[in-house]
Amino acid sequence: MTTLTATAPAVDPSLFAQLYAEVQQFYAHHFHLLDAGAAEEWAATFTEDGFFHPETLPVPVSGRAALAAGVRRTHDELAAEGVQRRHWHGMVSVVPREGAEVLDVRCYALIFSTPRGGSAALRMTCVCEDVLVRVDGAWQVKERRVTRDDQPAG
Amino acid sequence: MTTLTATAPAVDPSLFAQLYAEVQQFYAHHFHLLDAGAAEEWAATFTEDGFFHPETLPVPVSGRAALAAGVRRTHDELAAEGVQRRHWHGMVSVVPREGAEVLDVRCYALIFSTPRGGSAALRMTCVCEDVLVRVDGAWQVKERRVTRDDQPAG
Amino acid sequence: MTTLTATAPAVDPSLFAQLYAEVQQFYAHHFHLLDAGAAEEWAATFTEDGFFHPETLPVPVSGRAALAAGVRRTHDELAAEGVQRRHWHGMVSVVPREGAEVLDVRCYALIFSTPRGGSAALRMTCVCEDVLVRVDGAWQVKERRVTRDDQPAG
Repeated sequence: MTTLTATAPAVDPSLFAQLYAEVQQFYAHHFHLLDAGAAEEWAATFTEDGFFHPETLPVPVSGRAALAAGVRRTHDELAAEGVQRRHWHGMVSVVPREGAEVLDVRCYALIFSTPRGGSAALRMTCVCEDVLVRVDGAWQVKERRVTRDDQPAG
Repeated sequence: MTTLTATAPAVDPSLFAQLYAEVQQFYAHHFHLLDAGAAEEWAATFTEDGFFHPETLPVPVSGRAALAAGVRRTHDELAAEGVQRRHWHGMVSVVPREGAEVLDVRCYALIFSTPRGGSAALRMTCVCEDVLVRVDGAWQVKERRVTRDDQPAG
Repeated sequence: MTTLTATAPAVDPSLFAQLYAEVQQFYAHHFHLLDAGAAEEWAATFTEDGFFHPETLPVPVSGRAALAAGVRRTHDELAAEGVQRRHWHGMVSVVPREGAEVLDVRCYALIFSTPRGGSAALRMTCVCEDVLVRVDGAWQVKERRVTRDDQPAG
């Protein structure tokens, strides 16, 4: 787990404000794509070799093809059931590495689920730890580790 | 629906950070007013001709008088029942138009409800699409379209 | 209650963006510590004489030793039950006082709770009013007042 000690941005306050806004914008776009089932576009917000490692899986989901396939499968299932999921990131801590082209992000995640004609429900709360890198001016996820609060790491 | 493709701010990163912070501050103030039942003050955060179009209504609620009346009516009902609602915006995507005096915003919304002495509950999750314009230095809602996840647009 | 009228930052937009990002980063770090049960480190994010006043208590919890003791007690109880809490701040309104070394913040709070192997649940929604001060370059809570929506102030 990322240490919880880093807080004061090591970068200039003006640059930190830019990075912080860009990360928030990135997550908004990233989850709008995911929740719309835009599998390829979502996968393209990871680096070519990016991975997503839910701690409940023995190995990470690696590479855009595998990431997109997972989204497509889940989205098709949810669409068949008439369910809309919404992913939220919040309590976002951004710690830039030297040079500010790589960011260590630790944040909380909420996942909501609403069946058509039914009631919205909170599915789970999680902790998400990302390594974001800037590629051709845009942020991408290089590494993602997610721990579910109902199934915390041992 | 707004396309999901726009992500990289077309504006200078420093200006983008300013706009992003201003939009977040605007929504905070806007919903503090709404949830407090400050009907006229809330309606004044829309433009004179601003409208709010929940997709469940055949026509939008247009103009400050109608907007304020709706809030007053709902707030009176909730107050009589001893219920406090809370509106949250998150996953905010801000896309400035040329000149950065008009912003296309797409975000998620949560509505919570708590009866006095009872338990907080999630009422619904929504998608909100706003057009914000700067009027005398302050942001206002010119257009708002909201889709409920339990009653998605056909 | 803080007045709801202040919205436009009285400071330069570039400085406002910096302050807004710093407050968000501060809350993220602050709650990551709290939810991890890092009692002393969390208490150190208050000023030496800082206090936390839930309106349900007749007097505030004052000073770092008392703040840390409260967190330790609650965290030990939750750990024994296998429960993970998560605190979220959102809808954050930041109003800098003259000089921008003191900030009046009004925001909403969500508290979630997840038992190991069980389902995540929303525990409550609150309103939080903080006075943040800058001490040696880092923000600290000098005053915190919290109202629960299920037990609103009379």
